[in-house]
Amino acid sequence: MSDGPDPIEARLTAMGLCLPKSSPSRANFLPYRRSGNLLFLAGQICEWEGVPQAFGPVTAQTDLMVAKTAAQMCALNLLFNIRAALGRLDRVATVLRLGGFVSAEPGFASGPMVVDGASELFIALYGERGRHARTAVCVSSLPANAMVEVDAILEITPD
Amino acid sequence: MSDGPDPIEARLTAMGLCLPKSSPSRANFLPYRRSGNLLFLAGQICEWEGVPQAFGPVTAQTDLMVAKTAAQMCALNLLFNIRAALGRLDRVATVLRLGGFVSAEPGFASGPMVVDGASELFIALYGERGRHARTAVCVSSLPANAMVEVDAILEITPD
Amino acid sequence: MSDGPDPIEARLTAMGLCLPKSSPSRANFLPYRRSGNLLFLAGQICEWEGVPQAFGPVTAQTDLMVAKTAAQMCALNLLFNIRAALGRLDRVATVLRLGGFVSAEPGFASGPMVVDGASELFIALYGERGRHARTAVCVSSLPANAMVEVDAILEITPD
Repeated sequence: MSDGPDPIEARLTAMGLCLPKSSPSRANFLPYRRSGNLLFLAGQICEWEGVPQAFGPVTAQTDLMVAKTAAQMCALNLLFNIRAALGRLDRVATVLRLGGFVSAEPGFASGPMVVDGASELFIALYGERGRHARTAVCVSSLPANAMVEVDAILEITPD
Repeated sequence: MSDGPDPIEARLTAMGLCLPKSSPSRANFLPYRRSGNLLFLAGQICEWEGVPQAFGPVTAQTDLMVAKTAAQMCALNLLFNIRAALGRLDRVATVLRLGGFVSAEPGFASGPMVVDGASELFIALYGERGRHARTAVCVSSLPANAMVEVDAILEITPD
Repeated sequence: MSDGPDPIEARLTAMGLCLPKSSPSRANFLPYRRSGNLLFLAGQICEWEGVPQAFGPVTAQTDLMVAKTAAQMCALNLLFNIRAALGRLDRVATVLRLGGFVSAEPGFASGPMVVDGASELFIALYGERGRHARTAVCVSSLPANAMVEVDAILEITPD
């Protein structure tokens, strides 16, 4: 792995996005744990440097772009923690699986469109190796009444 | 692994069941991702070739056999994707874990009985190596308002 | 790994806690499945020897200590099954990930505080190697209308 500029981080910047300066855990857990070449990432909500930015429940009246953007913010927190774990974003070999949770009223059918906001950021940054298996469900509430929470399991490149 | 007839697929046929001809993802994710001998399968809802067949929420009045059959259909979609990933159903070494999600009204206590519809198909097909750890919960809604969603992590035999 | 007294079990006793004498699965699944050095544990609810002890949904009026204690009971059932799988509690190398599910009314924002009841027991018993990534969400109901369910993925020490 090169010590030069991180091409994934450059791509993030070119998309007009940046990572938060912090992503504090709001309870007694770690943001990630590694086992061999697997990296398990804790669920991240749509918060920015500890301040939740979008709240559930999503309803049929919610603008889906607002909800997709909330899912993208979850992904930015995951990326912050990937860089914290690995030193560089380009040490991700494959995004294996995302778990997406949307706080929504009963009857809301479009959870997958919301969680796409996270999935599409990983694909835009990592290309084919950013594509992943995924489970998306709608739940009755999330930490801090956040609108969306996303977790991940990654395969990482050897040290 | 033999190149002859797939004994698991023969057993499925003998049960009077068949796999769908397709199992399209309804958003921006892959149906599976492999890492070494682990196969991560995306959540599958109770749909047949892209058309949802049973809808939530489950209530105390819902016929549990209808809901178990919906869970079994999730498993048939998982099996479709296992065959797509591995070429043959008999390359599954162990079903490690299922995640089962039932769209249900608050107070519904029988989620495990519903998700058994998926678990029992894996056990009928694979015997002891089909037995698995599992987490089953009831959620406020699922993609396309489906009644059940099931995902899986498998260990596969070496190439 | 020593054959002497299990220091983790000694620590549990010193905390005034004990493991249940049984932890029966209430449906057609296994309490754990191993793949290499990974151990996948099925979701455990807040029950004692098969009898549920705390029921959802959690509301804003619920005493959070009651709910944390329910989460701790889920962890005691996980520990029972860890010992069943490995023979000894001290064969856990790392707790990689917990999944925490709280049965709660819409709008309940403190799921992480509840699930801490499980996380803090693992940390108290195992120290740094008990710290883990985690995803906590609130759901519409759980098996047997339990208040909390927790599952786990562990890394275990070689045989």
